Order: sequence, then structure tokens, then C-alpha cells
Amino acid sequence: MADALYLEDLAVGRRFETAARTVTADEIVAFARAYDPQPFHVDPEAARASVFQGLAASGWHTAALVMRLLVDSPFKPAGGIVGIGVDELRWPRPLRPGDSLRVVAEVVENRRSRSKPEQGVVRVRNTALDQSGEPVMSFVAMLVVPARSAGEP
Amino acid sequence: MADALYLEDLAVGRRFETAARTVTADEIVAFARAYDPQPFHVDPEAARASVFQGLAASGWHTAALVMRLLVDSPFKPAGGIVGIGVDELRWPRPLRPGDSLRVVAEVVENRRSRSKPEQGVVRVRNTALDQSGEPVMSFVAMLVVPARSAGEP
Repeated sequence: MADALYLEDLAVGRRFETAARTVTADEIVAFARAYDPQPFHVDPEAARASVFQGLAASGWHTAALVMRLLVDSPFKPAGGIVGIGVDELRWPRPLRPGDSLRVVAEVVENRRSRSKPEQGVVRVRNTALDQSGEPVMSFVAMLVVPARSAGEP
Repeated sequence: MADALYLEDLAVGRRFETAARTVTADEIVAFARAYDPQPFHVDPEAARASVFQGLAASGWHTAALVMRLLVDSPFKPAGGIVGIGVDELRWPRPLRPGDSLRVVAEVVENRRSRSKPEQGVVRVRNTALDQSGEPVMSFVAMLVVPARSAGEP
């Protein structure tokens, strides 16, 4: 169990790595049936004739899998991973059945709040890589993180 | 069944509205158990003591629900909703059990590709509103959309 991380612990340049997780065709189809039932996400036959040239995970499924990997990783901000936004989200290539996903997270900005100095905003660049080390998703998350001084007199 | 929309159909300023969908506590907890099992998303008791002050949907769950509303809406680009990225994603307030979600989508940019003039990139600003008309999520999606001239000699 990793220690909770406070604003002061998340210096620019600090990196975290998640475990890897393999995604199956069944998972891809089940997620897409619920949330993104387009032919190229739910029907392998139709997917072959699509721009994806084969079954591909919904980009929002990839995002959800990335979140799960982060939650289970040593990246444990105090108070949880509380995102207020995301910038520059990109899906450079599709996630396919059998692909293995892992995430590298790097702190790119750390700014204490002026109005609420007991917390700050940390920007973290997340890159999700497949088993070949090729990026399948990247984004910069804006997280609210409590400062260690919070609660002190 | 709405007609498929081509690049030429998606002029800047064109708007689309989705139906509304109510989210339940059970759905919020089920999604979070799979993809974002943090206490404030899976445990109503722990959520009350958290920064959310009550059970709140994972932001990625909200994103997935927004996608489903869009897929089921009259916004039907030819070839499907194929996103290459998202900018300026924000979650200004949490989505709660019992909240009803709907999405307003507006074309904000339409640019034919120079290298592949048979297609273009359309940027669409999506705003997800709760039953009070308050925004719970917004983002600008970058979509690849085929031009009507594609396939012509």
C-alpha cells in the first residue's frame, strides 16, 4: 500500500508507472454495447469494412481502462484522484483485442491555489502504451490535490 | 433514422440535441467498481465524507453516458462518430444518482484535409447538462468525417 501523496510530494518530473492489463474482444464489445454501440466497436465483421479495419475499443473504454490502471497504481494522491478536467486527449491508434495496456504518468505542473492555499492543482501527462510501447492514448489531467499543510493550525 | 452527415453538411454553428437519460446509483457504482473504484464513486457512506459530499459518478462514466446519448441522437456522421481527440474536457460539477443527462452538440470548426481532400476534421463542442440545465461535462471533440465528394471521379 503506497503512502498518500500530497501537493508537496508531486514535483514536476515525478513519474509513476501502472501495471499492464490485456483487453479481450468480449470486454471491448460489452463496453461498446452499453456506451458506444457503433458497428466497428461491437461487430467484428462490420469492423473489418470500417475505417478501423477490425474490431477496436471505444476511445472511452480505453480511457476507463487507463483510469482503472491508475487507481490500482502507486499514484495515490491524498483524497483520491479527483480530476476537474483533461486537455489534449488523443487516441493515436486503436486498442485491439489482445492488446496489453499500461500507463506512464508524469507530473508536468504543480501550482498551489492562491484562494485555497491548503490545496493545489497538479497537471499529469498520462501516456497509455500497448505491448509494443506504441501510444494508444495520451492526455493531460488536471487534478485537485491537498497540501500537506492542510489541517495544520 | 437520420440521414448520414457528410463534411459539407456540418457547417459551423449547426447544433444537435440528444435525448435525456437518468442515471441511477446502481449504475454509478457498477461502472466505478469496474473502472474507477475510488470510495466516493462506490460507497455512499465514504462519499459523504469526501470532497464530493455524496456519491458521484466517475467522470469517465459521465463521458461514456454522453457518448451513448450522442450515438443514439440525430448526430450521425457518415462512417460513424470517429474521434481522434478531445480538448478542453471539464467536469464543472458531479453527476449524482437521479440526475438526468442530455447533450447539446455544436459544430465549431470544419476543415477539409489538404492531404486527403475526401475527408476533413470537424470540431464539435459538446455540453452535457443536468435536469436543471447546469453543465456537468463539456469538451471539444475532433472527428474525422468523410466528404460527400468522396468516391466521385
